[in-house]
Amino acid sequence: MSNYIAIDIGGTQTRAAIFEQHSETPLLTQRISTLKQGEQPLDRLLDLIASIWEQSQPVCAIGVAAASPVDPYRGIIIAPPNIPGWINLPLQKHIQDRFHVPVALGNDANLAALAEWKFGSGKGHRNMIYITVSTGIGGGVILDNKLLLGERGLAGELGHITVLPDGPLCGCGQRGHIEAVASGPSIARWVEEELNKGKPSILPTGQHLTAKQIAAAATQGDELSLAAFHRAGTFLGRMFADYLHIFNPTAIVVGGGVSRSGSFFLEPLRAAMQSSVMSPQFLVNLTLTTAALGDEVCLLGALALAQSLANQ
Amino acid sequence: MSNYIAIDIGGTQTRAAIFEQHSETPLLTQRISTLKQGEQPLDRLLDLIASIWEQSQPVCAIGVAAASPVDPYRGIIIAPPNIPGWINLPLQKHIQDRFHVPVALGNDANLAALAEWKFGSGKGHRNMIYITVSTGIGGGVILDNKLLLGERGLAGELGHITVLPDGPLCGCGQRGHIEAVASGPSIARWVEEELNKGKPSILPTGQHLTAKQIAAAATQGDELSLAAFHRAGTFLGRMFADYLHIFNPTAIVVGGGVSRSGSFFLEPLRAAMQSSVMSPQFLVNLTLTTAALGDEVCLLGALALAQSLANQ
Repeated sequence: MSNYIAIDIGGTQTRAAIFEQHSETPLLTQRISTLKQGEQPLDRLLDLIASIWEQSQPVCAIGVAAASPVDPYRGIIIAPPNIPGWINLPLQKHIQDRFHVPVALGNDANLAALAEWKFGSGKGHRNMIYITVSTGIGGGVILDNKLLLGERGLAGELGHITVLPDGPLCGCGQRGHIEAVASGPSIARWVEEELNKGKPSILPTGQHLTAKQIAAAATQGDELSLAAFHRAGTFLGRMFADYLHIFNPTAIVVGGGVSRSGSFFLEPLRAAMQSSVMSPQFLVNLTLTTAALGDEVCLLGALALAQSLANQ
Repeated sequence: MSNYIAIDIGGTQTRAAIFEQHSETPLLTQRISTLKQGEQPLDRLLDLIASIWEQSQPVCAIGVAAASPVDPYRGIIIAPPNIPGWINLPLQKHIQDRFHVPVALGNDANLAALAEWKFGSGKGHRNMIYITVSTGIGGGVILDNKLLLGERGLAGELGHITVLPDGPLCGCGQRGHIEAVASGPSIARWVEEELNKGKPSILPTGQHLTAKQIAAAATQGDELSLAAFHRAGTFLGRMFADYLHIFNPTAIVVGGGVSRSGSFFLEPLRAAMQSSVMSPQFLVNLTLTTAALGDEVCLLGALALAQSLANQ
């Protein structure tokens, strides 16, 4: 029996794990900081794979998730926001040349969708949407049991949809995207603005807040914090109705740190989705649920990708 | 060689046409009003098929486009807005029972997308979006050379996406959908409202206007009319950027009467799309173009569906 290696390249940390065939529990996980002064990030990555490889052979395939737009067809990292110098890097070729096994590459949010579909809350659904609400908003779509990639592998940018024309500035440079309205930092910014206007709250003014702090205040009944999650949930729920009209799935799985805030977030989301569909037909057999896989989701997506390579 | 029969059931008219194998030019077309006092619309339809069948045998398959939500997997008309009594009508079975050839059924906007992809402006594109801007806004999506249907065949409702929260009422009962902002009647309603506010224009006040009249005024340089198409085009173009992020296609094909208004509509649309993408990567190899097939597009979509049945 051969093993799989799964890699998750984040902006800060890179994780590598070994899995036996038919197992979703890693034999071994290693993590390094993605960047280190005086070292090439590619060399660091290849050395990490080598060190885990030694402990796990034989390896039949390697799957890689990256926090970057990627070209999954050609195995290229296009432009990760946090790794200087990796512009159009042919990472798949670099890894294959060194380790001589099949390698595949995917965008982290897309692979998180794959993981939730194969191992998590989306299991058994032929048509599923995964949305992660965290520092940013990303996602992935499973259609007819296949990950939607689009012509050049850029599809599934579900967080960059205009929900508020001329709204707040998004990380991507555009305005009014759902990421700029309902991500963790966007919820915090809205609360800070309301505090500056003098809205009463148990939260401190004049400080940089986090969605986590605001969720804690909401749990204690703070009205401004509750209103912030209600607003973000409502925007998301309306967008979920849009996605129901576009894709007609049977499951929407919500992941990411913000999704774990509580019912004061998820209930307005569900209510807005249900009241925003153009016909109740779109709600038939629909499951709206939170993600099952937690922080390991991208690593498990890389595993799912490696498994699909071995089964080809 | 066998022939195909294609049917296009509209709210007002129903058309039937016969095509020889490998031909997109009908041998013969017949049309009737969909409804007639004292007659069952199903009997009228079956008689229309019988009359055209007599002149075209042998027939190897029948494709049907319907202005209604449909279940294409089970061949059921769910609820056409303009044909009373056709609730969950098993039309595929009715036609098969009488004519004993394979029959398939599709939503008219979805099949128009299929037609533009197979015979029209989308030819040769693996991933394509079709949007029709007319009395309503509808569409269809081709992914990996296959029509996107979703779990129950309801996917591709591209006109029912919220582009203006709490905006104008949409035909579907929701608010702020692109159909309520940029369809022909929505453009006319906006102009009527501006005229009522006293905006100068060569258009008459206090009358019910059409998008066609407004396009004619825009062609003469009427500023209010130009502004109306600029506004609708800008909303559409921003939404097209959303669809690029979601699907990463190489073609967007715009059909329907409003798409033929002129460059004062298409240029702001193109400009808004181009300036609203999160990365220029989404514009690489992208074609934005108008539809090629005109009024016959749904009939040709029904033909494409019949052809796919015969090739199974």
